[in-house]
Amino acid sequence: MKIGIIGSGNVGGALGSRWAMGGHKIVFASRNPESAEMKALVERAGPNARAGSAEEAVAASEVLLLATPWPATQAVVQGLGPLSGKILIDATNPILPRLAGLEFANTTSGAEQVAEWATGARVVKAFNTVGFNVMEAPDFGGTAATMFYCGDDGGAKEVAKQLATELGFSAEDAGPLTRARILEPFAMLWITLAMVQGYGREIGFSLLRR
Amino acid sequence: MKIGIIGSGNVGGALGSRWAMGGHKIVFASRNPESAEMKALVERAGPNARAGSAEEAVAASEVLLLATPWPATQAVVQGLGPLSGKILIDATNPILPRLAGLEFANTTSGAEQVAEWATGARVVKAFNTVGFNVMEAPDFGGTAATMFYCGDDGGAKEVAKQLATELGFSAEDAGPLTRARILEPFAMLWITLAMVQGYGREIGFSLLRR
Repeated sequence: MKIGIIGSGNVGGALGSRWAMGGHKIVFASRNPESAEMKALVERAGPNARAGSAEEAVAASEVLLLATPWPATQAVVQGLGPLSGKILIDATNPILPRLAGLEFANTTSGAEQVAEWATGARVVKAFNTVGFNVMEAPDFGGTAATMFYCGDDGGAKEVAKQLATELGFSAEDAGPLTRARILEPFAMLWITLAMVQGYGREIGFSLLRR
Repeated sequence: MKIGIIGSGNVGGALGSRWAMGGHKIVFASRNPESAEMKALVERAGPNARAGSAEEAVAASEVLLLATPWPATQAVVQGLGPLSGKILIDATNPILPRLAGLEFANTTSGAEQVAEWATGARVVKAFNTVGFNVMEAPDFGGTAATMFYCGDDGGAKEVAKQLATELGFSAEDAGPLTRARILEPFAMLWITLAMVQGYGREIGFSLLRR
């Protein structure tokens, strides 16, 4: 697949690098593609990756990963131009400063806001519920961490599922895009345990069945 | 421990029965302690359990489990009388009719509402994130389901942790009572997967570490 990474920070860098190593063609979007930071990222990701402008990333890609800091998200998404038919995987969380909570929840979600801003895109929520370090290594001693996804476009969901499965996650369908109202608070569980409660970043969740 | 079960439905019945079988002294509160349903519950729970009024359950107990349907919760809690010093374990979720979402989230929680209503009680949120069937059997093929708890009273939290651990859960501290703003949406994840997405009730979550 051809995947544009919108927001090439820790999460975008981890996912884009691993997908590039897995054979996908990656464009890391950056306002400064020639920066030392972007060059190091592209080198780490290998020959299937390059850096470019957001416009280049969108033009070159059928799938976009959105991994921007929340305060930048609206302007970035609205600046991407026409997204008709593109699959947009929303990995953001609408987190308030100092982890004080979510900007909104319960009656709407970041993903639903993103879907309004990304006119025409096929939005799926995924890769928002664990830290980048778990995205780099979803295996916990033989148990795959679970990655939930949700959305209203079946094809987009299949792509998110495949991309999660390729990384080693156990990918699970949480339903329509409104379930982001549950998956974004679920991200807050990981974040507060890892960052506030002293569990540290090397934690994940597994869905148990019998 | 002496434990009063306020709300003797599926959740209260499962927890009270297992705690009675484990040696705790249980009073199942009911408006109709002589009903066939309550007699069957007490018989199932064994010699450490009896049924009584809510007043009897409160008077006899140092720990109260609150497991009422949400719409009844405020009136029931405010009708319990003085609760000074009692440990109140809140297992409720403020779920809207037809699983439409939570009555509130993010900026407050059911647990915080309960703490306002239960004047003087030492409130801890626990046993709200999985169904009663998982409370009856927290083991998934050798892996214990995780039970999160949160609260502002250290002693109350230790009691919740002990009672969860005795049942076979892996009990994990999610922090202060405001974390119910995260644990109640987390309950919605279990509920929607189990009831809406077709996963069925025999699911749970495990916190992974490395």
